[in-house]
Amino acid sequence: MRLYVGLVHYPVYNKNAQVIASAITTLDLHDLARLSKTYDIKEFYVITPLANQQSLAERVRRHWTEGYGAGYNRDRKEAMELIRVVESLTRAATSIKEREGESPLLIATDASKQKERSLSYEAARKIIEGGRAVLLVFGTAWGLEKEVMGKADYILEPICGRTGYRHLSVRTAAAIVLDRLAGR
Amino acid sequence: MRLYVGLVHYPVYNKNAQVIASAITTLDLHDLARLSKTYDIKEFYVITPLANQQSLAERVRRHWTEGYGAGYNRDRKEAMELIRVVESLTRAATSIKEREGESPLLIATDASKQKERSLSYEAARKIIEGGRAVLLVFGTAWGLEKEVMGKADYILEPICGRTGYRHLSVRTAAAIVLDRLAGR
Repeated sequence: MRLYVGLVHYPVYNKNAQVIASAITTLDLHDLARLSKTYDIKEFYVITPLANQQSLAERVRRHWTEGYGAGYNRDRKEAMELIRVVESLTRAATSIKEREGESPLLIATDASKQKERSLSYEAARKIIEGGRAVLLVFGTAWGLEKEVMGKADYILEPICGRTGYRHLSVRTAAAIVLDRLAGR
Repeated sequence: MRLYVGLVHYPVYNKNAQVIASAITTLDLHDLARLSKTYDIKEFYVITPLANQQSLAERVRRHWTEGYGAGYNRDRKEAMELIRVVESLTRAATSIKEREGESPLLIATDASKQKERSLSYEAARKIIEGGRAVLLVFGTAWGLEKEVMGKADYILEPICGRTGYRHLSVRTAAAIVLDRLAGR
């Protein structure tokens, strides 16, 4: 399995459908790093073009991988080591290409059902288990901007619960998606 | 489906295996309420015996169901309305009994595999789909205290990812468990 995860802070929408760079939520870094460790994700890309937000993410990573946190909680250290802070989705894809020798297939996630390039969980799982390098991306705030969506090879089906309510946090949505795609 | 969720703040363990009452994490209230709405949970019990922590949870609930938040985000309102703040697990079970006419089956969750009363996801799903009233409980901090575990009818299998790493946040663990037990 050569699965990578990206958490995109730019470009995403705010509540009023304006394109913004969202702030880092440090708790999301912990939750997604721990999920990444659980589901054998190779690297977890924290994507933001803002220098001060990159510094914040790096500082959190260092605290838990080299600083006081590394000794305080060794399990957390293992998870936080998977974090890579990069300025753009393109940079994340390039980094994966350098490592894997092929550009990753880009699978975006969205809370709405897409008409084109929609991918079922079953089909996505087959692609991943087939050994293709895949970058699975999640948007923060009100979701990934449409140009990013346009660049994706596939857009994963939204999470269907029992009620049609589709307003999960990115943390819990990522948990469900990773369990469906990479759980045993 | 008559499924209820409980988030237990006492009695739970701290890092040093001492029994404590953990602090409310307001973000967990949001995440579990949104999951509850997604997976058609009847009520989401926030369990703590500490008066100031009960007040905090009630204040968060009211902000989003009656206060400014109710108008600001109507989707969140629908989710936060599922929150019930109670002082103990016993009180949660009694409340469900009053509503359902039967005591709920108590299913506890744990990050470690149990020797006794262990329940697979498949078996748990069958019980829930069979229509039995069920209270599914999650521990905060370092997990549910052993007396609470002793009272449970069943203990759900731990989440198995791909690596054996079992250190998820309660938010993301609850997401995975609810998707496995109540997802379509």
